[in-house]
Amino acid sequence: MKVLVTGFEPFDGEKINPSFEAVKRLSSSIYGGEIIRLEIPTVFYKSIETLRSKMCEEQPDIVICVGQAGGRARISIERVAINIDDAKIPDNEGQKPEDKPIFFDGENAYFSNLPIKKIKKELEGIGIPAEISNSAGTFVCNHLLYGLMYYIERDFKKTLGGFIHVPYLPEQIIDKKGNLPSMSLENIVKALEQIIKTSIKESIT
Amino acid sequence: MKVLVTGFEPFDGEKINPSFEAVKRLSSSIYGGEIIRLEIPTVFYKSIETLRSKMCEEQPDIVICVGQAGGRARISIERVAINIDDAKIPDNEGQKPEDKPIFFDGENAYFSNLPIKKIKKELEGIGIPAEISNSAGTFVCNHLLYGLMYYIERDFKKTLGGFIHVPYLPEQIIDKKGNLPSMSLENIVKALEQIIKTSIKESIT
Amino acid sequence: MKVLVTGFEPFDGEKINPSFEAVKRLSSSIYGGEIIRLEIPTVFYKSIETLRSKMCEEQPDIVICVGQAGGRARISIERVAINIDDAKIPDNEGQKPEDKPIFFDGENAYFSNLPIKKIKKELEGIGIPAEISNSAGTFVCNHLLYGLMYYIERDFKKTLGGFIHVPYLPEQIIDKKGNLPSMSLENIVKALEQIIKTSIKESIT
Amino acid sequence: MKVLVTGFEPFDGEKINPSFEAVKRLSSSIYGGEIIRLEIPTVFYKSIETLRSKMCEEQPDIVICVGQAGGRARISIERVAINIDDAKIPDNEGQKPEDKPIFFDGENAYFSNLPIKKIKKELEGIGIPAEISNSAGTFVCNHLLYGLMYYIERDFKKTLGGFIHVPYLPEQIIDKKGNLPSMSLENIVKALEQIIKTSIKESIT
Repeated sequence: MKVLVTGFEPFDGEKINPSFEAVKRLSSSIYGGEIIRLEIPTVFYKSIETLRSKMCEEQPDIVICVGQAGGRARISIERVAINIDDAKIPDNEGQKPEDKPIFFDGENAYFSNLPIKKIKKELEGIGIPAEISNSAGTFVCNHLLYGLMYYIERDFKKTLGGFIHVPYLPEQIIDKKGNLPSMSLENIVKALEQIIKTSIKESIT
Repeated sequence: MKVLVTGFEPFDGEKINPSFEAVKRLSSSIYGGEIIRLEIPTVFYKSIETLRSKMCEEQPDIVICVGQAGGRARISIERVAINIDDAKIPDNEGQKPEDKPIFFDGENAYFSNLPIKKIKKELEGIGIPAEISNSAGTFVCNHLLYGLMYYIERDFKKTLGGFIHVPYLPEQIIDKKGNLPSMSLENIVKALEQIIKTSIKESIT
Repeated sequence: MKVLVTGFEPFDGEKINPSFEAVKRLSSSIYGGEIIRLEIPTVFYKSIETLRSKMCEEQPDIVICVGQAGGRARISIERVAINIDDAKIPDNEGQKPEDKPIFFDGENAYFSNLPIKKIKKELEGIGIPAEISNSAGTFVCNHLLYGLMYYIERDFKKTLGGFIHVPYLPEQIIDKKGNLPSMSLENIVKALEQIIKTSIKESIT
Repeated sequence: MKVLVTGFEPFDGEKINPSFEAVKRLSSSIYGGEIIRLEIPTVFYKSIETLRSKMCEEQPDIVICVGQAGGRARISIERVAINIDDAKIPDNEGQKPEDKPIFFDGENAYFSNLPIKKIKKELEGIGIPAEISNSAGTFVCNHLLYGLMYYIERDFKKTLGGFIHVPYLPEQIIDKKGNLPSMSLENIVKALEQIIKTSIKESIT
């Protein structure tokens, strides 16, 4: 059983991205699954290509992409990605698409095929606040999840795939205004390991 | 150097109170100071009496009271307590005072004499989000800080005293609505240890 | 030019629903368009049927459905509806579907074909805070927008359709906890009239 | 019966201040009271002097100061002012005091003597969300309330005085990030008129 887990490069002026900080700290083997880690550029299309290329090479059973959702308080399990790029800030190569479809021959939206409700329940069971999210936004996170599920539907039909948004780390909110939530890196890592475990159990059955 | 650190009993239907959970986990010696831990009943007046009695017995150099401020995202260093009890929920013995002065012969308010700005800065220096708060509310937390500073002004003039509000723990927000912030127990403990250290440094100079 | 504007029945224990309160107060003629008002039951499927039946009868050029999004601060212009019903609370007839597709033969999602960006810009031009929303949730609001666009794609190809979420009214937050945003009924009505105007301009060109 | 009602100049880069926008629109006579309007500079000490000078001239029975509290959702009735200036941003003349007492011979804090609980109740009775606030901050709003009550205690013992914080206007949040609450100018004016009425009733009895 191979599990590909990705995190993003920092973006929007941040020095770190909690998603890849957590992915880096994952054990190399979880619940019998081999963990393959990948950092994804925060760039439209290049992100999808980086992921697809690794999927071709590794043929993973499960793909879990992770991204930062600054301002959210809980581990946020994405349900769906929509066929639109609409950026309010530029990506890491300066692209700022507005209201553009991602793939002209794609569906309007794709649903993650991870067991999202079980993941929520099992995270809460180990004391981690979690929620189902119905929007991954319209920036590179939604873009990547859309690309992942587009290629799963075409070329990797047996693969489970989905996207997890994680809160800011505590140190990221120090210089920001407002009552912004955060989550410790330890708890984000613990959450990802549980998500991998739940996904492996689902994949086996 | 003796440092008395207090936390509260759970209240308002909660099963745990992050303040005493964190206080329990403090080392018994921090930066050369002997740490004395005390759980305080979440009850008007009984809280102050429990604290005053321990202060008489131990004659601490520093008193740091800790309480839960559900909904706050940062370690919250209280600046001031006001001479009013005004409860929206009953305390743990069913008392629910409305707009009552705490001590008729007390000042309208007392300021904490901890180095609150230094504490904020040093917490941020170790990656913990912190803020100065100008209100500890009008429930038992404000009540206890008021009582602490009232007695410091009268009977313990050399003692440093103050109040720290801490966020919910992650597990406390699981069943609550909304995008509620939380902080891991590890980070709350780390924060309290830093606060004790900064206060000891201040006390020595 | 006919414009059908719908609001919902109160739900979730509320006594009023700001959406239909505002729809009731719309002028019967706006920018040359005849305004047809309709109250929709907050019930899965019956909501869509009520709307479809009225659309068959009136053959409107534009359909704007309005719903309450308690907790949002701005007029929220929905971009997309997804093919899922997933209720956390029962609808007004006690149904509480979980993770069920709305129409088995429908797309994964439909996009509103209202000029959502122009609407946002023109609302802001008259001093009303507005935002594009990428999720109408998974309750009856998303359900109705999904049904609307499903039937527009099949049977009413020239019709413009979309969904507007409005904040709580000020009186609705009085007995609720927290720093909840609201919007005055006057401003919600003013916003809907501007949205109708912008949509009519789009429909003509 | 004379009622002096003050609002502030815009500050912090804002073009308007909802407090004086609302004060300007008050009727000149409310519930038998003559309404005197005054704009206060958002400047430490000059604000208090402007107010005190007008109080000497007019000898009002009631003084209600109004200020903007960006981010609050409700009409916020201040309970208390504390003897500290601690500015995070400069005032309108560039002063930025840190941890300075306002008056060396003043109390640690003064309580408003308006009927704050009745005001809350009567505002809610007319559909306006209201709350008691236990902190007016440490900027010019707290400074002015402190100065008002300091002089009431010394020189205007029969005068009722207090401070009301009002939310942003809807147009002020358009270009700001986040789910910021606001209140319509009409509702702020309606709230102030009710507050004046409740205060006059209290003053008579």
